[in-house]
Amino acid sequence: MSHDDGSGWSAAAFLRDFAQLSTIGATPRGGVDREAATVRDGMARAWLGGWLASRGFAVAVDGIGNQFGLLDLVPGAPYVLAGSHLDSQPTAGRLDGAYGVVAAAFAAHRVAAGARAGTVRPTRNLAVVNWFNEEGSRFGPSMMGSAVFTGRLDADEALRTTDPAGVTVRDALDGIDGRGGPVPLPVGSYAEIHIEQGRELEETGDRIGVVTGTWAARKFRFRVLGEQSHTGSTRMADRRDALLGASLLVVEARSLADRFAEAPLHTAVSQLDVRPNSPVVVAAEVRANLDLRSPDPAVLDAAVHRLRDVAARVEAERGLRVELELTHSWDRDDYTPECVAVSERVCAELGVPARRMLTVAGHDSTNMAKVVPTAMLFVPSREGISHNEREDTAPDDLVTGVDVLTGVVRELVTAPGSGPDRQPWTPASTG
Amino acid sequence: MSHDDGSGWSAAAFLRDFAQLSTIGATPRGGVDREAATVRDGMARAWLGGWLASRGFAVAVDGIGNQFGLLDLVPGAPYVLAGSHLDSQPTAGRLDGAYGVVAAAFAAHRVAAGARAGTVRPTRNLAVVNWFNEEGSRFGPSMMGSAVFTGRLDADEALRTTDPAGVTVRDALDGIDGRGGPVPLPVGSYAEIHIEQGRELEETGDRIGVVTGTWAARKFRFRVLGEQSHTGSTRMADRRDALLGASLLVVEARSLADRFAEAPLHTAVSQLDVRPNSPVVVAAEVRANLDLRSPDPAVLDAAVHRLRDVAARVEAERGLRVELELTHSWDRDDYTPECVAVSERVCAELGVPARRMLTVAGHDSTNMAKVVPTAMLFVPSREGISHNEREDTAPDDLVTGVDVLTGVVRELVTAPGSGPDRQPWTPASTG
Repeated sequence: MSHDDGSGWSAAAFLRDFAQLSTIGATPRGGVDREAATVRDGMARAWLGGWLASRGFAVAVDGIGNQFGLLDLVPGAPYVLAGSHLDSQPTAGRLDGAYGVVAAAFAAHRVAAGARAGTVRPTRNLAVVNWFNEEGSRFGPSMMGSAVFTGRLDADEALRTTDPAGVTVRDALDGIDGRGGPVPLPVGSYAEIHIEQGRELEETGDRIGVVTGTWAARKFRFRVLGEQSHTGSTRMADRRDALLGASLLVVEARSLADRFAEAPLHTAVSQLDVRPNSPVVVAAEVRANLDLRSPDPAVLDAAVHRLRDVAARVEAERGLRVELELTHSWDRDDYTPECVAVSERVCAELGVPARRMLTVAGHDSTNMAKVVPTAMLFVPSREGISHNEREDTAPDDLVTGVDVLTGVVRELVTAPGSGPDRQPWTPASTG
Repeated sequence: MSHDDGSGWSAAAFLRDFAQLSTIGATPRGGVDREAATVRDGMARAWLGGWLASRGFAVAVDGIGNQFGLLDLVPGAPYVLAGSHLDSQPTAGRLDGAYGVVAAAFAAHRVAAGARAGTVRPTRNLAVVNWFNEEGSRFGPSMMGSAVFTGRLDADEALRTTDPAGVTVRDALDGIDGRGGPVPLPVGSYAEIHIEQGRELEETGDRIGVVTGTWAARKFRFRVLGEQSHTGSTRMADRRDALLGASLLVVEARSLADRFAEAPLHTAVSQLDVRPNSPVVVAAEVRANLDLRSPDPAVLDAAVHRLRDVAARVEAERGLRVELELTHSWDRDDYTPECVAVSERVCAELGVPARRMLTVAGHDSTNMAKVVPTAMLFVPSREGISHNEREDTAPDDLVTGVDVLTGVVRELVTAPGSGPDRQPWTPASTG
C-alpha cells in the first residue's frame, strides 16, 4: 500500500520498531511484563517519548501520567487524537495496547508527512497518546488515565490509589518521572486500533473489525464472611467456611454462562484472596471479583437476579454472610455512527475486507466515545488468545491495521468544519 | 488442690503468669499473633527463658530452635520432658500451645519443689520444652521442631525452608537469637496438655480428656493448571479456568464429608493461591491444600479414591490439568497404654472426671509418641472454637489441667527402673 508518502513509512520499519519496543519487559515465552508505572513501563514510555520527539512531536505528560505527542498543523484547531496503552498485565502478549500506540504514532507521522508534502490538507491538529494504566492489574480501576482525562474519575482519587504493596499511583509515577501537569489539548475526535481478543475475524476471514459498540457489563466485588476454625478438629456442622461459600459462587457464575449460552453471557471470577490462607485454619473471609458481560442488558439483569438468589441460599445453608458490591455497570455503548462510516469507507478504498462487530472488553476508546466522536478498529487475534504471552497476530494483519488507521486519521484530520468533531473536548486540569 | 508444695504454686500465680505471656503479640480481639520466629515469637521465648532460669532451670536451645529448660534431679538419669509450643497462627487464641508450655513449666517446677522438700522421690530428671514452629503457618511443615527432634525431618532441610517472603528458617531464627546447638537430652518419656479444639468434653461435662490415639489423615497439595485468557472477551467454551477447577474440588471436598458424615470424615481446603490473580485475566494456575481426616483409615482411602475420580472428570470436562500430591499420610496412631493408665490414675486420685478420647489434630506429642512413652491430655474448649481469637477455656479448667499434668509428671519422674521409659530417646545432633 502507500509506502512512499514522505514519512519514511514501510511495513518493515513498523515491524522493526515494534519489535524493539517488545524487548522492553520481554518474558521468556515471547510476551511482556510492563505493569503500570513499573520500571519496565517507564522504559517503554522513554522509548515512545524518544520515537515521537525525533519525528517532531512535542512530548507532554499530564497529571495522571497520560503521555502525549502533539503535532500542530493548523494553529488553534482541535486535535485528532489516536493511541492506546503501553502498560500490560503482569504477563501478557506484546500486542495488547502497545500495537495501538505504535500504530497511532506511525499513522500520525504518515499523515503529517502527507501534509508537509501537500497531499493531505489538514483542518485539524494531530496527537498521539499512551494512556496510563489501561490494564488495572496493579492499580484499580482499569482505563485509569482515560477515565481521568474524560472526567469520569477524579485525578486526586486516582493518584491516591495504592497497589498491593501500598505504593500510591502518585509515588509510582514519580518514580519513573511519569507525572506532569495540565496539557492544553482540545480533542475533536479519537481513533484507536487494538487486537480483537476474540476469534470472530479469524473465523470470518475479515481483516479489520469496525467496532460499533461495547457489550453491556456488570462488575462486582464480593466478600464471603465465615469464621476461623481448625481444619482438622472442628466438626463439619460447626464450620462456617468462607472458601466453600466463595467456591460455590465461582461454580454458580460458570453455570450462569452455560444457562444463558445463547445470549451469549460471559462470566468470570479471576481474582480471589483467602484470609487467613493458612493450611490449618478454615477461611474466615474471601474477597473476589465477579464479572458478567453480554450484548443484552436484560440477560445481565436476569443473571444478577439469579446470582443474588444463590448468594442468599449460600448464606442460609452455610452459615455465611455474602456481600455483593456492584463496582462497574454499563449498558451497551455505541460508537459514533459517522466514525463507523469513515472506517468502512477507508477499508473499502484500500480493498480490505471488514466487518462490523462489538467489543466485549472495555478500551480507552470506551471512555473517549463518551466525550468525542470515536473510531475503534480491530485486527485479528490468532485463536482469540488474549491476556496471555501466546497472544499473536500475523505481521500482514498488523501492517494492514496501520494502513487502515492511517486512512481513518487522515479522514478525521482533513474533515471539513462540519466534520464529526463539532464539540471538542478539553480535559479538566489533571495537574 | 495442692497449693502448698514449696514451689510457690497457686492457681492465681499460674493465671497471672499466663495472662502476662498473653500480652505478647496480643490482638485487639483477645487473641495473639506470634507466628514462628517472628519478633513476637522471640519475645514469648524470652519471657519463657526468664521464667525458667529464675526457677533454677538450665535454659538451652537446639539447632532448630526448640527451647528447653533442664532441671537435673538424678545425675545421668533420663528426662521426663513436658511442654508444647508458644508459636501461634497469624491470629489465634492465646491458649493453643502456650497453655501447654506454661502448664508444663509449672508442673515441672512443682514436682522439683516436691523433690527438694522430700515429698517426691525422683528417679528421673525434669525438662520443659517449647517446640519450634508447631503451627506451620509461616514455615511448613507444621510440628517442625518436634519432627527434627525425633528424626522425622532433616534439620538442614528444615533450616532451608522459606516463608512466603523468601526468608529462611535459619535467618528468621538467627533474627531472634533462636538457634543454638546440640542439647544432650536423653528423653525417657513425654507429657503434653492442650486445649481440646473440639466440644466433646464440654458436651459430656468431663474435665480432662485422656488422649488414646490420633485420627488418621491424608494431606494433599493440589495444583490446577489452566490457561490465561481474557475474562471478558474469551468465549466461555475456549476458557480453561483454573479457579473454576479448584472451586469444583473445594465443593467436592465438602460433599465427601457430607457423604461420609457418620464415619466421621473431616475435609478442608483452607489455603488457596490464584495466579495471576488479576481482575481481568482468567486464572492459569491455582495451588491449594486439601486435608482429609477420619478415625477410620478405610474411609479415608475411599474418600481419596472418589476425589481422584472427580479430579479426572474436572480435567476432562474443563480442559484442565489437576495434580494431587500426597504430602502427609498417617493412619491411626495410638498413645502409650501405660501413659493412658497413669493419666487416668492421676485423674481418679484428684477426683477429676476424665474420659478417653481421640485427637483429630496433630500435636508435637504425635511425633514424640513415636519415640518414647507419651501422655497426652486435653482440657475443655468453649464451643470447641479453635484457631480463632475467640478460643477460650474456663480458668478453673485451666488450673485443673495444671494439677493433672503435675500429677502425671510426678508419676513419670518417680517411676521405678521398670517404668514406661525403658529406652530413652536421645536426639541426633541438631546443631
